[in-house]
Amino acid sequence: MPAVADELEAYALDPQAGTPLTAAITAVPAEATARYALELGDDALIMAQRLGELVAKGPELEEDIALTNIGLDQLGAARLLLQYAGRGLGRSEDELAYFRDESEFRCCALVEQPNGDFAQTIAKVFLVAHFQQLLYGALLGSADEFLAAVAAKSLKEVDYHVEHADLWVLRLGDGTVESHRRMQQGLAEVWPAVAELFDDTGNAELITAGIAPERAGLREAFEARVAEVIEQATLSVPTAAPLMVGARQGRHTPHLGFLLAEMQVLARQHPGATW
Amino acid sequence: MPAVADELEAYALDPQAGTPLTAAITAVPAEATARYALELGDDALIMAQRLGELVAKGPELEEDIALTNIGLDQLGAARLLLQYAGRGLGRSEDELAYFRDESEFRCCALVEQPNGDFAQTIAKVFLVAHFQQLLYGALLGSADEFLAAVAAKSLKEVDYHVEHADLWVLRLGDGTVESHRRMQQGLAEVWPAVAELFDDTGNAELITAGIAPERAGLREAFEARVAEVIEQATLSVPTAAPLMVGARQGRHTPHLGFLLAEMQVLARQHPGATW
Repeated sequence: MPAVADELEAYALDPQAGTPLTAAITAVPAEATARYALELGDDALIMAQRLGELVAKGPELEEDIALTNIGLDQLGAARLLLQYAGRGLGRSEDELAYFRDESEFRCCALVEQPNGDFAQTIAKVFLVAHFQQLLYGALLGSADEFLAAVAAKSLKEVDYHVEHADLWVLRLGDGTVESHRRMQQGLAEVWPAVAELFDDTGNAELITAGIAPERAGLREAFEARVAEVIEQATLSVPTAAPLMVGARQGRHTPHLGFLLAEMQVLARQHPGATW
Repeated sequence: MPAVADELEAYALDPQAGTPLTAAITAVPAEATARYALELGDDALIMAQRLGELVAKGPELEEDIALTNIGLDQLGAARLLLQYAGRGLGRSEDELAYFRDESEFRCCALVEQPNGDFAQTIAKVFLVAHFQQLLYGALLGSADEFLAAVAAKSLKEVDYHVEHADLWVLRLGDGTVESHRRMQQGLAEVWPAVAELFDDTGNAELITAGIAPERAGLREAFEARVAEVIEQATLSVPTAAPLMVGARQGRHTPHLGFLLAEMQVLARQHPGATW
């Protein structure tokens, strides 16, 4: 996969240069692959929007910048994946982001959850980062050259997200009585949405074809990794019952509707900002 | 100024590395210089917050990323300037950002203005970028080594902001009837706040000492540069009467209070997020 990976690398180094991004996307995915790219892209897109809501509201200027950068990484990955999906589905990235209704989104319920307080935001960043680290790691071996290249590019960024979130979980968990309490509660709030991360419904053919990794197979490693950090932070792994809403099939928690209303209003009022 | 400039460059290349930022700020500015750094820093901080409000609401994913990156550049400059100011005033950057009241802010009225529609946001980015390009250019020769180094670092970023905003002014102004109308109106909305950019009240001693450039002296070049782009975009330079509220002396337009309420709420509820 050197060619596509090199193009993506060049784009990552200089996104303003313009053309390399679309130039790198020459393959047209089959519809099933396009829909899978949409799952990956929607996770990143909705995560980016949630982090974007925080830009003006961080507890420290330094953390403001860190969370915004994590959001930008997610948005960068979302654009690549939505463009690729769009080539297979005959829609542009902006059409996919701004003109799909709630039931057409394929993101997981975890990224839809509200920011809550700072500890809850960190809990979400922590769990999403560990999940994406394992998923993108597995995607490196995908039979789909483009998805493998996106995974390779994103993995470098996600490694930093993991490092950053781990440090905060440790700092808050092993901090004051109040920070410990809030970190534990933050984890508890979002934990029910973790189980569905490993749902493979609808992806059997892509798994057989070696395009999509089996998400269920990542669960054990995920649980071991997050438990290690949680315990080191003197916290305990939540035991809340799993929430299975069927988000990947378009049945979302009520939070997504509000997020989309906010995110899509400008584009829908002024399609393409071309007026 | 090689030493400070090198440190800032290293920090810009790898902000996660941690220590170089504060390590670079070894000088303690006199109070007058600290207050001047605060003017520069507040402009950048409030501009960053306004752009941050847009993250989840851009008209295109690509533009979302561009405006967020411009906001991050402003936030990066704000942090350097607030840290430097804080060394002279005995306050941390976070205290200065989150625990000053409205009348203590020294930003200009232009950056306080609401985003309005996309054209109005572009008008504001356009005018601020051209102003900062001239101001930072003049600051390269400052007798204050740290301010000169911040200007050198920021100028590279601001050159891109100018380029980006110019392109949008041209694209919208010389676009459809509707985009032309909106771009003209966007410029008209924010134009009254332009005059005060060139107010030098209170800075006479710093100007004499060669620390602060005379802002009034930048006005002619500013007007020539923006007029050139505005006319090339088939738009006309607004003629609205100047708004002189005394923002640099702490008398702000009502918009700043709402912005600060939003920006400061989390930090004031949970000082330092240390709980």
